[in-house]
Amino acid sequence: MSQSMLTIDGLQYSQWSRSIFEEMRAGGVDAVHATLVYHETCRETLMRFGEWNRLFEQHSDLIMPVLEAEDIQQARETGRVGIFFGAQNCSPIEDDVDLVAIMRQLGLLIMQLTYNNQSLLACGCYESEDSGITRFGREVIREMNRVGMIIDMSHSAERSTLEAIELSERPVIISHANPYSFHPAKRNKSNDVLKAIAESGGILGFSVYPFHLKNGPDCTLDEFCGMVADTAELMGIDHIGLGTDLCQNQPQSVLEWMRNGRWAKEKDYGEGNRQNAGWPAPLTWFSDNRHFPNIAEGLRQKGFSNEDVEKIMGQNWLGQLTEGTRPGSA
Amino acid sequence: MSQSMLTIDGLQYSQWSRSIFEEMRAGGVDAVHATLVYHETCRETLMRFGEWNRLFEQHSDLIMPVLEAEDIQQARETGRVGIFFGAQNCSPIEDDVDLVAIMRQLGLLIMQLTYNNQSLLACGCYESEDSGITRFGREVIREMNRVGMIIDMSHSAERSTLEAIELSERPVIISHANPYSFHPAKRNKSNDVLKAIAESGGILGFSVYPFHLKNGPDCTLDEFCGMVADTAELMGIDHIGLGTDLCQNQPQSVLEWMRNGRWAKEKDYGEGNRQNAGWPAPLTWFSDNRHFPNIAEGLRQKGFSNEDVEKIMGQNWLGQLTEGTRPGSA
Repeated sequence: MSQSMLTIDGLQYSQWSRSIFEEMRAGGVDAVHATLVYHETCRETLMRFGEWNRLFEQHSDLIMPVLEAEDIQQARETGRVGIFFGAQNCSPIEDDVDLVAIMRQLGLLIMQLTYNNQSLLACGCYESEDSGITRFGREVIREMNRVGMIIDMSHSAERSTLEAIELSERPVIISHANPYSFHPAKRNKSNDVLKAIAESGGILGFSVYPFHLKNGPDCTLDEFCGMVADTAELMGIDHIGLGTDLCQNQPQSVLEWMRNGRWAKEKDYGEGNRQNAGWPAPLTWFSDNRHFPNIAEGLRQKGFSNEDVEKIMGQNWLGQLTEGTRPGSA
Repeated sequence: MSQSMLTIDGLQYSQWSRSIFEEMRAGGVDAVHATLVYHETCRETLMRFGEWNRLFEQHSDLIMPVLEAEDIQQARETGRVGIFFGAQNCSPIEDDVDLVAIMRQLGLLIMQLTYNNQSLLACGCYESEDSGITRFGREVIREMNRVGMIIDMSHSAERSTLEAIELSERPVIISHANPYSFHPAKRNKSNDVLKAIAESGGILGFSVYPFHLKNGPDCTLDEFCGMVADTAELMGIDHIGLGTDLCQNQPQSVLEWMRNGRWAKEKDYGEGNRQNAGWPAPLTWFSDNRHFPNIAEGLRQKGFSNEDVEKIMGQNWLGQLTEGTRPGSA
């Protein structure tokens, strides 16, 4: 497994621990997009950065922070996992356009404009209607372009996503979702959106979160790899990667925080429902970070060339990060 | 002027000082809806409450806080001005439905769901499109109904306003604006909205802010009172009052805060423009709190009965506050 092919995961949110970092190394993972926050305010986001700083100190033999794409090479060379940060919502900047640059400086490389609900910037995929990018949203997109913070529309609604792509002068990504044509979940994306993401120069990270998969936890590796093949045709081989959405060892309370934040007094069940309110059962072929080689093998079985498998497993993400986190010219 | 007719102003945001409080008394003002915040966060809102607590201590001979409608009678009996608080935006509750009850407990009797821009709850009147009340917005309306915090849609867009009225089980108000038919400003309201406000049991407070008036600072008292008469016919005499939007002695920086908050990196001129970026010139017949009797006199000249003038000058607002700030049953 050592010095295997470059492997970058486009999204995880686990209850981080030494054993998870060890599993990452065992699975040949070189870098992971770690969700820093869901609904946390500016101050709370700084707390999360602080907690990560402790993890970096305590586990400096296993992990290191990625502040620019080049750090991933260093992680690889020193046998560690590079951690790069993203926010699943725009809550860290609250109402302040100037906080975009501040968060970027602290190492927030990626930010979603919305998480399911309407935000101050754009509309989320769980609202009944979507009026697109707001006045504040336009300012923030311009600023994210300027400082090199990547725009992620994973939890956004269709029109907002298409408008963000149109307004942004730099690629827009979907770090973790699947095509709606594979499985019609609110969180999955239409072909129109996927094509526009690819045309912008962005990437789709395929999710293995069972709610995003056909047949849920029973989805087979072959079905998953078939979806990847179909999407490669739609978007092009340079615009796809992984974004597993792996949430390991998280308690029910974290799922409820994701779904309800502080906004819902009546409990919202998100992708689940009252009868099925918990975390989904895991896949057999991908339940933790040691299983990345299964996906690479599945892709080969599906007929992808070695070069293409390398792109999907990590090279495309490396390209996105290299380009997307450079300061812009605007 | 002493113990004149009950006079309640449905909105002011001045640079508060002893001389303004003295002018209020000179003008026979019994109570004023004072804007506490525009874009302030929860923490900053508490700071504003703290500053007011100092003013109440320092000027206890002239002003007192209104925590329930009955306090207005006490203010009147002791020759003081009752101050009741409202927020022009939902920024004080940030992303937290539980902060509605906390803010109500502190004395926030009125809250707007938006200020010009899209908020987490609804759409403002300066966005190009309006998708109505959000998921969080529905929760907040229910909670405001429950705790007796009055919903104010002065700076909201049309569809959001109509939906808020439909969703709310209690009256919805427009504390300060005029009919769009009188002057077609983005901030003024369509007849549909005005009728729906009246049907909900709510009130419109007429604004004398020149940007909301036909001919701006040259609008005559007679024209203003003509608008009041037309609106009385449309909404009914029980659903109109004053909401002067008087902003006395405020520097340019405050106007820029209202318009730009922290969201705009490129300067937004709101109702003005680059060539006309400042505060509007005042009206001749209403430039400070001493001029309320001018309006009462103008209304009489226009043919309103004494009873109707009393309703417009204060009785209708007293009714709104009495009903609207009681805890609900939900």
